[in-house]
Amino acid sequence: MASLPGVEPSEQITPAELRLATRNHGMPLEALAYDVTPAGLHYLLIHYDIPVVDGEAWRLSVGGSVARSLSLSLADLRARPSVTRAVTMECAGNGRARLSPRPISQPWLLEAVGTAEWTGVPLRDLLLEAGVDDSAIEVRFRGLDRGVEGGEAQSYERALPVEDAMRDEVLLAWGMNGAPLPPQHGFPLRLVVPGWYGMTSVKWLSEITVSADPFEGYQQVRGYRLRQTPDEPGEPVTRMVVRSLMIPPGVPDFATRERLVEVGPCVVRGRAWSGLGAVAGVEVSVDGGVSWRPARLGPSVSPWAWRSWEFEWDAAEPGDYELCCRASDAAGNVQPLEAPWNLGGYANNAVHRVPVRVE
Amino acid sequence: MASLPGVEPSEQITPAELRLATRNHGMPLEALAYDVTPAGLHYLLIHYDIPVVDGEAWRLSVGGSVARSLSLSLADLRARPSVTRAVTMECAGNGRARLSPRPISQPWLLEAVGTAEWTGVPLRDLLLEAGVDDSAIEVRFRGLDRGVEGGEAQSYERALPVEDAMRDEVLLAWGMNGAPLPPQHGFPLRLVVPGWYGMTSVKWLSEITVSADPFEGYQQVRGYRLRQTPDEPGEPVTRMVVRSLMIPPGVPDFATRERLVEVGPCVVRGRAWSGLGAVAGVEVSVDGGVSWRPARLGPSVSPWAWRSWEFEWDAAEPGDYELCCRASDAAGNVQPLEAPWNLGGYANNAVHRVPVRVE
Repeated sequence: MASLPGVEPSEQITPAELRLATRNHGMPLEALAYDVTPAGLHYLLIHYDIPVVDGEAWRLSVGGSVARSLSLSLADLRARPSVTRAVTMECAGNGRARLSPRPISQPWLLEAVGTAEWTGVPLRDLLLEAGVDDSAIEVRFRGLDRGVEGGEAQSYERALPVEDAMRDEVLLAWGMNGAPLPPQHGFPLRLVVPGWYGMTSVKWLSEITVSADPFEGYQQVRGYRLRQTPDEPGEPVTRMVVRSLMIPPGVPDFATRERLVEVGPCVVRGRAWSGLGAVAGVEVSVDGGVSWRPARLGPSVSPWAWRSWEFEWDAAEPGDYELCCRASDAAGNVQPLEAPWNLGGYANNAVHRVPVRVE
Repeated sequence: MASLPGVEPSEQITPAELRLATRNHGMPLEALAYDVTPAGLHYLLIHYDIPVVDGEAWRLSVGGSVARSLSLSLADLRARPSVTRAVTMECAGNGRARLSPRPISQPWLLEAVGTAEWTGVPLRDLLLEAGVDDSAIEVRFRGLDRGVEGGEAQSYERALPVEDAMRDEVLLAWGMNGAPLPPQHGFPLRLVVPGWYGMTSVKWLSEITVSADPFEGYQQVRGYRLRQTPDEPGEPVTRMVVRSLMIPPGVPDFATRERLVEVGPCVVRGRAWSGLGAVAGVEVSVDGGVSWRPARLGPSVSPWAWRSWEFEWDAAEPGDYELCCRASDAAGNVQPLEAPWNLGGYANNAVHRVPVRVE
């Protein structure tokens, strides 16, 4: 495997990966404490540069295979009936840097997730107003962010099948956590597709194009595919697979992030989510995955957001432990002990393991 | 040098450094476009975990060598006369990962900076109300964040000489950019010491202790010292040395962050700051530092914040270029081509170099 292009057998991170890691950031796992992730703690993955957009001059165009093209200002969009939905969003590459050999891209460990309250207009309402042709199969979304990827200069662009674009929960969001979108989350407008990995929720949206042809842009046919080799077409990455994460208990060592827990009762808390069905259960192991016991599930924050869980651990004996959590969903999916490898490092939902020392 | 503990001769980043880099984050350099950094884009360096604090139950104590101890709620502090100051803050370790051999800690490249509008009460007013004893030499600040560092369990704690603590510009801030402090920036209250590196501006503040003895805690006598070897005491890191950064022009390649610029006129923009005197000038080189021409300085955002600059570059010929910028301050300091090495990787203000390809 080590001879494949774009993968790295070493545990050490390359300078190019560090350039990505100092820009993009995860949600520190202690922020799993919040139902809704405070702005600035939500994960960020930005392919190119954050555009500086003049909200007064900006317009959204809706065109292509429609009866009536639309051109809307931010004020037009804000004047329409709006909805607010709490949505958990995860980067498709979350966990990539834990794979071996390691796919070379943004080197996420585990933290590329967050939950925000997005406010905006249902995409369906705009598509119905524009009138989608019977010939249409996809809706394409283009952002204002530009860069080079796979050797091609491009705007960030993705497409959704019409039936997914017309789903009730899909939003064109102009607000996040009760405020206008921050620049880094797509000001003035972004797509939010609940249940899907974050690459789908195009930021800095400028053009929506209804199309009778499949989109063959880089982010659709090269990026975000589950492949074993660069030559195969692979399967598209779509919905988030089931995952749970815990708040690492105790206190950290600054340099290593290793955890120190005081002897005694310890409540372990976390969150779980799936884009394929409601969370059905969470189990915890305190012996590295040898034995498992059920955690107590709390409420979901919304139908599209993570569910809290907690587990009472009696850390009575000093020593070294490995805490693990794994979730299952209503569709019958369970987090694996090891996730299957793929070239892009996508959809890695292996159980979360946290070594702790009890003293 | 490579045999020193805590330094790494390799260009490759270790797994422990990656664990820090996925939590802490810099300000993507295109955000130098904003006078005041939007919340969520300001750099963050968090030694331990972000505490979850109940703002209703929290109190600040002011004690030690004072005539009257104080205990104040957040409401008490918000009811006092407040001031708002725009302040540029930089991490003392900014640039660390560019040093060779590389000190092992948070692996910053260049982006550990930001400017915020902090709102709060002058620290001096509280100290005057408490009545500082004549015997006092320092004021200590303790945060609610706890962890292990250098083998010691500790709260994050730093001290300032009384004369620095009494300066007009030093704030106890409860607001950032017009909103309550976000959790990651120190909710409900933090110290803000304009002109100093960020380690001084203790977050999640719980105790202020006026003292007749010098503080000998880890962050004062081990961390944040300029040393060549682990055994020497070294000099304390204090004020920010002069630095300029530019917005990398053109568009990036996703994987490498290398820049592509179109042939033609190109305005290069950036910011400059110093904690040792007003910014006096910025120069730009388009030939890797062989020749330099002055940039045009814009206004400072405030006496404590960065100053904008711009430079008109005629990128008339295709080819590879290395753009550089360097600032000088009113105290006569100039950014060096190479910064002196030290064991902690602090205060590295080498000129900013941006390779670009013109096509």
